Amino acid sequence: MNVRGRVTLPIEQGMDDQLPQILDRLGADAVRNSDGTWLPEITSQLGVKVYETYFPARGNQEFALAHLDARPRFYLMSDRVTAPAEGPLAIDIMNGYYKMQVEPDQGDLQRWWEVIDRTTGEVVPVEGWSVSGEGADVTVTIAAPVAFHVYTVSFLAWQVWDSTQMYNYTTNNWENDPTRVREIGYDARHPDAWEFMTSSMRKWCEERPEVDVVRFTTFFYHFTLVFNDLGKEKYVDWFGYSASVSPLAMEAFEAEYGYKLRAEDFIDEGYYNNSFRVPSKVFSDWMDFQSRFVSSRVKELVDIVHSFGKEALMFLGDTWMGTEPYGKYWPEIGMDGVVGSVGSAATCRMISDIPGIRYSEGRFLPYFFPDVFKPGGDPLGEANESWLQARRAIARKPLERIGYGGYLSLAVQFPEFMARIEQIADEFRSIHEVGEGHLPQSSTIRVGLLNAWGAQRSWQTHMVAHALWYKQIYSYLGVLESLAGLPFDLQFISFDDVRDGKLDDLDVVLNVGAAGTAFSGGEQWLDNDLITALRGFAANGGGVIGIGEPSAVQHQGAYFQLSDVLGVDKELGFSQSTDRYPVERPEHFITADLPGALDVGEGAGDIFATGDATQILRLQNRSVELAANQQGEGRGVYIAGLPYSHENARVLHRAIFWAAGREADFDAQWVPSNVGVEVSVFPEAGKAFVMNNLTEAAATTLRGRATGLDGDGAITELQLDLEPMESRWIDLQG
Amino acid sequence: MNVRGRVTLPIEQGMDDQLPQILDRLGADAVRNSDGTWLPEITSQLGVKVYETYFPARGNQEFALAHLDARPRFYLMSDRVTAPAEGPLAIDIMNGYYKMQVEPDQGDLQRWWEVIDRTTGEVVPVEGWSVSGEGADVTVTIAAPVAFHVYTVSFLAWQVWDSTQMYNYTTNNWENDPTRVREIGYDARHPDAWEFMTSSMRKWCEERPEVDVVRFTTFFYHFTLVFNDLGKEKYVDWFGYSASVSPLAMEAFEAEYGYKLRAEDFIDEGYYNNSFRVPSKVFSDWMDFQSRFVSSRVKELVDIVHSFGKEALMFLGDTWMGTEPYGKYWPEIGMDGVVGSVGSAATCRMISDIPGIRYSEGRFLPYFFPDVFKPGGDPLGEANESWLQARRAIARKPLERIGYGGYLSLAVQFPEFMARIEQIADEFRSIHEVGEGHLPQSSTIRVGLLNAWGAQRSWQTHMVAHALWYKQIYSYLGVLESLAGLPFDLQFISFDDVRDGKLDDLDVVLNVGAAGTAFSGGEQWLDNDLITALRGFAANGGGVIGIGEPSAVQHQGAYFQLSDVLGVDKELGFSQSTDRYPVERPEHFITADLPGALDVGEGAGDIFATGDATQILRLQNRSVELAANQQGEGRGVYIAGLPYSHENARVLHRAIFWAAGREADFDAQWVPSNVGVEVSVFPEAGKAFVMNNLTEAAATTLRGRATGLDGDGAITELQLDLEPMESRWIDLQG
Repeated sequence: MNVRGRVTLPIEQGMDDQLPQILDRLGADAVRNSDGTWLPEITSQLGVKVYETYFPARGNQEFALAHLDARPRFYLMSDRVTAPAEGPLAIDIMNGYYKMQVEPDQGDLQRWWEVIDRTTGEVVPVEGWSVSGEGADVTVTIAAPVAFHVYTVSFLAWQVWDSTQMYNYTTNNWENDPTRVREIGYDARHPDAWEFMTSSMRKWCEERPEVDVVRFTTFFYHFTLVFNDLGKEKYVDWFGYSASVSPLAMEAFEAEYGYKLRAEDFIDEGYYNNSFRVPSKVFSDWMDFQSRFVSSRVKELVDIVHSFGKEALMFLGDTWMGTEPYGKYWPEIGMDGVVGSVGSAATCRMISDIPGIRYSEGRFLPYFFPDVFKPGGDPLGEANESWLQARRAIARKPLERIGYGGYLSLAVQFPEFMARIEQIADEFRSIHEVGEGHLPQSSTIRVGLLNAWGAQRSWQTHMVAHALWYKQIYSYLGVLESLAGLPFDLQFISFDDVRDGKLDDLDVVLNVGAAGTAFSGGEQWLDNDLITALRGFAANGGGVIGIGEPSAVQHQGAYFQLSDVLGVDKELGFSQSTDRYPVERPEHFITADLPGALDVGEGAGDIFATGDATQILRLQNRSVELAANQQGEGRGVYIAGLPYSHENARVLHRAIFWAAGREADFDAQWVPSNVGVEVSVFPEAGKAFVMNNLTEAAATTLRGRATGLDGDGAITELQLDLEPMESRWIDLQG
Repeated sequence: MNVRGRVTLPIEQGMDDQLPQILDRLGADAVRNSDGTWLPEITSQLGVKVYETYFPARGNQEFALAHLDARPRFYLMSDRVTAPAEGPLAIDIMNGYYKMQVEPDQGDLQRWWEVIDRTTGEVVPVEGWSVSGEGADVTVTIAAPVAFHVYTVSFLAWQVWDSTQMYNYTTNNWENDPTRVREIGYDARHPDAWEFMTSSMRKWCEERPEVDVVRFTTFFYHFTLVFNDLGKEKYVDWFGYSASVSPLAMEAFEAEYGYKLRAEDFIDEGYYNNSFRVPSKVFSDWMDFQSRFVSSRVKELVDIVHSFGKEALMFLGDTWMGTEPYGKYWPEIGMDGVVGSVGSAATCRMISDIPGIRYSEGRFLPYFFPDVFKPGGDPLGEANESWLQARRAIARKPLERIGYGGYLSLAVQFPEFMARIEQIADEFRSIHEVGEGHLPQSSTIRVGLLNAWGAQRSWQTHMVAHALWYKQIYSYLGVLESLAGLPFDLQFISFDDVRDGKLDDLDVVLNVGAAGTAFSGGEQWLDNDLITALRGFAANGGGVIGIGEPSAVQHQGAYFQLSDVLGVDKELGFSQSTDRYPVERPEHFITADLPGALDVGEGAGDIFATGDATQILRLQNRSVELAANQQGEGRGVYIAGLPYSHENARVLHRAIFWAAGREADFDAQWVPSNVGVEVSVFPEAGKAFVMNNLTEAAATTLRGRATGLDGDGAITELQLDLEPMESRWIDLQG
């Protein structure tokens, strides 16, 4: 076989004749099973690596049923209920929850539960309420509530059904399949569970000499995923730690950190510390505490895997809480690789940028599942769309491997699809091969993205439910999506990093998001040290780009605290009495490739220029949508929103150059005249990878130096005509 | 002459032959001069009342120049200026101001000026800054500012040119007219000025026996109107008291109230206490203090006028600060009448609802000015538009008089226009005559509009620069505009009124406006007494209607603090992880006359239903635009915005009936089936006034009782066909 590698395919039984040829065509060097399929006996003769899925914290129902006290828990909040004029208030705490998933844990409930008056924010003393009922039917009665105040009950609950398995079960109607049970998880903090996990791990490895790679799916604590009384999704936070709690853990935390945790530390007014909330000190401590615990235990499992000569591969999802791949405990685990689902350029970079592993692998869309691979389905179209999105990111920071999931027997019924993924695999490998293993070159402009999370949540900003489309995020996610394919080394920095002098390492800093969120920063901007660090950065020639509601918090006559640098502020209604005479000056370096209006998505409301010095580049319905401002030595750029598009990525590319004061260099940066085309430059190889991101043919001009993005090489100008979606390697000499 | 009355016309010299006939056709019983015209000698023979304009606080340049220390002042703020990395910071405080209007008053400036660090909000001690320059060129230098903090200077300044006269002067290019001077005002608190004002008033009255009505235009303190360095409007607040300040006044205030005033009490972070700001205690005290002073002095002038057998008529505008016509000192003045410009139904009600006077007069559009009365101009169209807007309001609460302004010699060149205003005058008088002097009947549903201002600013909410179109207000002004013509007795109530039990007198309460403004209420909603009063009101069967961002302040897991009553809340980004499954149920009593989408104007962002009980009546782009919610005995209605339209007025009409639980009564309320038609019912006269608000013919059905809106009269159904804009009196018996 002519294996070229870097590709993982799902295989299954009953295709033994076809498998060698399929693997050969695709150059696949690894195979895996999928949910509900088993590796065929021929596997060991295929000459490829073998992956197999492993679930450390669920799957053994016998153990689970014998150790119900080892089930994981979560913290949940009841509905908000208004007290009547007089008399007690009874709250059915399970209203709206799915009783087959959630069961209140009444153990020591006076310690762990909390009843809160949401009108005042005060906690109702434990003497003031009582609990009745059992199992999943539990009522909390507040004896003497204040009339017409709103109350909630925060309670600890058992996860009586594993969230992912429940999702698969209900989605696939497994209630009709007598071989399926409702799987219950077990908590790695429980001593018996942990003993069971390690011994099972050893036993599993022993029993599977044919497996080369243990694909952990995943570890101990599920992201927050709760279902409603109809069994539909009720709350989902892919970053949430609410399901990582237990009295054992909270007591261990208290012993170590010296302070008691309370329910509200997790409930967070019902927002459950989702990643849009500026993280509290307590929540940051908890993340650190759990990440340290999880990482140390995962390391023990990985050590076992290694002791059997196998590799450990982590699936980035499901029960991944605590293995923050950009967290400080991550490198200690010794994980060999990470595999994750690629849904966009940004999610691709989220995987390919993970430090401290030997390889990252992207699982591409579409899955070989019958929802797409059916008569009338368009697997080819989905493959193209997925590849065009991911290719931009891969050309900037290559994944080491790609792969697919699902049922190969379905995919082979679509020969055009199979031919296309063969091309994709070759195109993917060329980036490693022609690039000679070097990373593509980045601009020397050092760019930072500033928010409350910083590096810890690199490429993970503004995501709800793992990168689905949400009305309030797409206008910001477009910034990440653009940057995932632009030639900048992007650092994710936190407000604390700024206070620690991190801006010294940057040329341009971005603050992107909606007011009050962790991504904009909320009340962080009331901190004098933070705000003066940014203003000083700008005064020394730094560039500041604000998108949406940057630095927004109402204070002392301004809403954008960086309004002096950005040259714009937002009208909340208070300053309408001030006359404004906005004049659009549409011609600018930043807008040179944007002939018409800027698509700002949801926009940011009513934005006005703070003075005549602000250059309004796009004005719509009397609101500023794009502005440039020279403030002393530094420069500010404001953008009202930036959903991803080819045009918008180019606007951001140019905005960064302008903010850095480097617009004079832009013309020889190998930037295509056609915004639908992008280029990655590999100077060590003397080549550039040109991508047509369009599904139609594209003509473009390119200008650049033989030395790459910088240096003093001669400037070459090329004219290219590219086929739809084509990528092409060109020589930098022209 | 066949004078029918209630109409005031501007007349001028050179038309003696035509005047009797014109006055007769229009039934005018009063005449006035206009700017730049003089009453003809024939006036006294016309048998009509004579108005003449009077300016108490400007017009005598000799006195003004001899008493420059009597000029009025205002409090102004400099630009926001960022301090450099090191060294002093010099702020040109006059940057952006018009030096012919503004001159810093350096008298005792360490007492009256303030330098503020807007990054911290702290005041810079007076030792820390110095002032250089004189006249209108003044620089404040902060010796040792904190690097990169933003500073402002608040300063007291002389008004060296009266704001209205300056506006007229620059607008009409009077700089080319050698007879014109730049008029300087004088402050009624200055003892010499006040002595001069009273003696001048007497002298003026003595010298004008032919004048029946002294039209005060107006009194002492101008609304805030400041021009920029190009002479264009820079800041305008028709409700602003910033130009009512002086050391004398502030010292008198301190002596009475027992606390010192500071510049920031007026500067208000640069927002100058405009009516969108929740009023501070200090500003409320100042309004009260100045209103009391102004009212007492105006009363003295009015007493002089009365002593000469003349009437006193106040123009509602220009230097009107302190004569709040809905304020508690207003009735003591003894003003005979108020005249104001009518730009909409709401501004018409603002005039016609003023208590404690004998007559209100609306000055209608268009003015007889050459900008409209010229070849190609459309005075007829403007008259129709203005009348259609005002008629709704007049039919609900009649003005006693109407009138016009400008140059009659221009208007008579447009005979169609003259014929139309003759019809309008007749139509107007019919409301008094056929209605037999009774007010039209209101529904028994008692409606209150709740905001921070309450009755003091009746019909004056959400106005910037006296009812011009502004992006952030039209979606709220439509509520007032609708109510101005709907058959409800509307009370304007404040949050303090609610705390004092005022809700007991109401059936439905509205809270309308943008978050944080005085109209929504901002942090007022953190007050437990307020919020529980509203919830208790609803629990007892009251109706709550929220429009825009009602009760909005982020607190304890909710943004709309009345979200339990309204059934909706606004997504700020924090609760996106909560799944929502909104289902529109478009058929409802409230939407019975709204076949399609609701026009919510600017809308209110991302609104979601808090639970399945909320009835979503209109859903657009996944956001709730109209919802109804039964909460216990009470009902909540949410509307995302309500710009004025016939359809929207009907939606509000129905929403109020539904919120009051009175929808069963609606069908016999004489409400036309055609939303372009409205009706005012006069049961004492046994008649109803039917108005076609459309400029096209309208067919409609009407159902109502012979007894009017209520009672047990037989129900009649009528079918009417109305001409464009027609009004028609019908008998309630059908």
